[in-house]
Amino acid sequence: GASILAGVGVVSGWPVRIRIVLAFFGTLSFFLQSCGGFLWTGGIDFSRRALSLCTAEALKHRSTRMVPFRWAITSAGKIAADFAHAVRQLEGHEVVAVAARSEAAAREFCARHARGAAAYGGYEAMFRCDRHGADACYVATRPDSHRALCERLIARRVPTLCEKPLATSVDDVAALYAAAAASRTFLMEGVWTRCFPATAKARELLRGGAIGDVVAVQAEFGYAIANGCPDGVRGSAATGGMGRDIGVYLAEKALLAFDSRDYDLADARGVAVLGRGDGVDLTVAASARMVGRDPKRRGGVASLLWTGQCDTPEVCAVLGTAGSLRFAATHHTPRTLEVTTRTSRTASRTEVLDFPEPGDDGAHRWNYPGSISLQYEAASVARAVRAGAVEAPEWTHADSLAAHRIVERVRDQCYAPTADVDAAKPGDF
Amino acid sequence: GASILAGVGVVSGWPVRIRIVLAFFGTLSFFLQSCGGFLWTGGIDFSRRALSLCTAEALKHRSTRMVPFRWAITSAGKIAADFAHAVRQLEGHEVVAVAARSEAAAREFCARHARGAAAYGGYEAMFRCDRHGADACYVATRPDSHRALCERLIARRVPTLCEKPLATSVDDVAALYAAAAASRTFLMEGVWTRCFPATAKARELLRGGAIGDVVAVQAEFGYAIANGCPDGVRGSAATGGMGRDIGVYLAEKALLAFDSRDYDLADARGVAVLGRGDGVDLTVAASARMVGRDPKRRGGVASLLWTGQCDTPEVCAVLGTAGSLRFAATHHTPRTLEVTTRTSRTASRTEVLDFPEPGDDGAHRWNYPGSISLQYEAASVARAVRAGAVEAPEWTHADSLAAHRIVERVRDQCYAPTADVDAAKPGDF
Repeated sequence: GASILAGVGVVSGWPVRIRIVLAFFGTLSFFLQSCGGFLWTGGIDFSRRALSLCTAEALKHRSTRMVPFRWAITSAGKIAADFAHAVRQLEGHEVVAVAARSEAAAREFCARHARGAAAYGGYEAMFRCDRHGADACYVATRPDSHRALCERLIARRVPTLCEKPLATSVDDVAALYAAAAASRTFLMEGVWTRCFPATAKARELLRGGAIGDVVAVQAEFGYAIANGCPDGVRGSAATGGMGRDIGVYLAEKALLAFDSRDYDLADARGVAVLGRGDGVDLTVAASARMVGRDPKRRGGVASLLWTGQCDTPEVCAVLGTAGSLRFAATHHTPRTLEVTTRTSRTASRTEVLDFPEPGDDGAHRWNYPGSISLQYEAASVARAVRAGAVEAPEWTHADSLAAHRIVERVRDQCYAPTADVDAAKPGDF
Repeated sequence: GASILAGVGVVSGWPVRIRIVLAFFGTLSFFLQSCGGFLWTGGIDFSRRALSLCTAEALKHRSTRMVPFRWAITSAGKIAADFAHAVRQLEGHEVVAVAARSEAAAREFCARHARGAAAYGGYEAMFRCDRHGADACYVATRPDSHRALCERLIARRVPTLCEKPLATSVDDVAALYAAAAASRTFLMEGVWTRCFPATAKARELLRGGAIGDVVAVQAEFGYAIANGCPDGVRGSAATGGMGRDIGVYLAEKALLAFDSRDYDLADARGVAVLGRGDGVDLTVAASARMVGRDPKRRGGVASLLWTGQCDTPEVCAVLGTAGSLRFAATHHTPRTLEVTTRTSRTASRTEVLDFPEPGDDGAHRWNYPGSISLQYEAASVARAVRAGAVEAPEWTHADSLAAHRIVERVRDQCYAPTADVDAAKPGDF
């Protein structure tokens, strides 16, 4: 028992809660074996990497803050390139392995975006990324491949950050989180918006009642696929439609306004323009109703709009009884937060909070707007993985499941128009 | 026949269509009687006022553009006061009669807001407002009284402008328009937003393709009833809930983006926070889908939000394939139109069009923001009534019916949550 307390005390990054659990139950329920520098626990599973941090070697590095967080990357696509460059410029992070469908693509990716990383053709070999001491794997392949790849990584207990959408159905999303929980492996859907300082500030303000009781949230997000779709699969069945692609960013806003720690989703509805003959949702107006778990929290509604037919300003307003909070464009990479306190129906006072994006060395031409801020997400994952957590507090499994429920419920309705209305005329986009 | 043609030729304000009808069918189906300066027709009904314009006296005045448009006002409430003051400052308009529930209230109203007008206690006497040569009656009583009052005015063939909502159900709205059409009496729901120059410009730009094909429209509108409800009945069963009170302003935006001359409503859905125990909608997130009558027009969606729980910025964005159009706050009294042409996903060029509100002599402290612009609505009614029309082109019977259909469909859904979701928890507002 004493040994545990001593050993744990050194790992200052671990959360207080875990330290307390160990302190109280250490002598009762844990079996301590210090052998070859490894520490096992009987009752609680920690991820492989969290355990390796407890080796004498790791603790030495950690105490001098020199242990880098090592990333494996699955995919050699555009968002993967952006992620590699964001991580390259983030102190204490490095990319150690990259897998693509072909070895040539992986090698080219490493040469351009991750010099020195090991290149793998195919993902199977990559899953043994622990050979490179990878702390986590970033999955950035096509959405329809996410479930299978994540399942294999989780089966090997590799902490995983998977680009959104985590999967193309609520059932698949739930299955992945169940697998992660069962094996105590970290898994996060890459809703990077949640890791921005502006988002953290907004959550803090909203939970603290800065704009009174939240009544409603309104947000839109869209871009014209016709104007050039970066990866050729947006808005198609391969991604599960625009709802899976960007609807999740809007559901995120609903769950930010009505924090999923305090509110439950009660209902979600919507109408859609379907597209391309493959029947996926192209443009959707969605509504969600949230109810507070505590009766003191009244709850309210979310009014959300996503589209693959046109570029949109991408703003978001959270409306409360004492004011409002507005994410200036573009809200999926939030940098400006406007906090308005209304003084009458037409008059108000606004405070603007700026959160400049991280410095950029200019060596990479980003494929997506604001990608340097993938640094925030990488840092969030490192914190959570090092703490031995199975989820990041910024975007929990519950958050992600709720977001997919909103999108899926709305989509299901769009495919089944009510009987009393005129027949749908699917768009010929 | 010749007499008709000669007589009609002088009434230059009459539309070409009517003149042609008279010219062709005059000798066959009309009986002309010029007696005491009055003109009757047998086959086609004209409103009493349109007929009185044909008297020698009226024609003389009309030719020198000196005939004032004479208003009767039913109600001595706050919006009626604003209307009276807007009309007082509009050249060629005057208020000739006012009716309230009590004669004292009507007299006080006249003394303060319509000096010289006849005051009536009770509405029955008022319906004989033709004694004052009233050209139209403005109904501004509580919404739950609109249907009965309008029916009586229509029965007496008095051109009527009725404050929104015209009635508290689609059936009532339809019944009133049917009555107006049957008796060829002018009837308009007072959606004054439609009469603003900014709205006319927006309709022109949208129909002309200035922002490409319209894909979606997003708008919100709300105010905190708790902060002081001007007439004490807002958000209650007496008005039919917030949807009837202000939802119509948002449905108007859907029908502006997808012009009801070109598009049909295909579907409308939503979720709500219900309030006050009387079960009316307090806060609603609504969606509507519009389909083009011409297959070349794809159609799209509207994402709408209304609330009686908090004050909102009240902005509206119309999103198209080639740009967007934004009504700056407050969109129900539009003065600023921003026309944005997108040059890439994140870059755009914006032109700001300003439409200053009419001059105000400062003699009246307005009860509602922007009420001086009720002038636009009064002018629209005068134009239409003088043209012998049964509806104003700015807000037709079809527009109004479609708006009420959107609001009612959404509200009906809100009262009947789908079976697969958690039970609704009505707000305790």
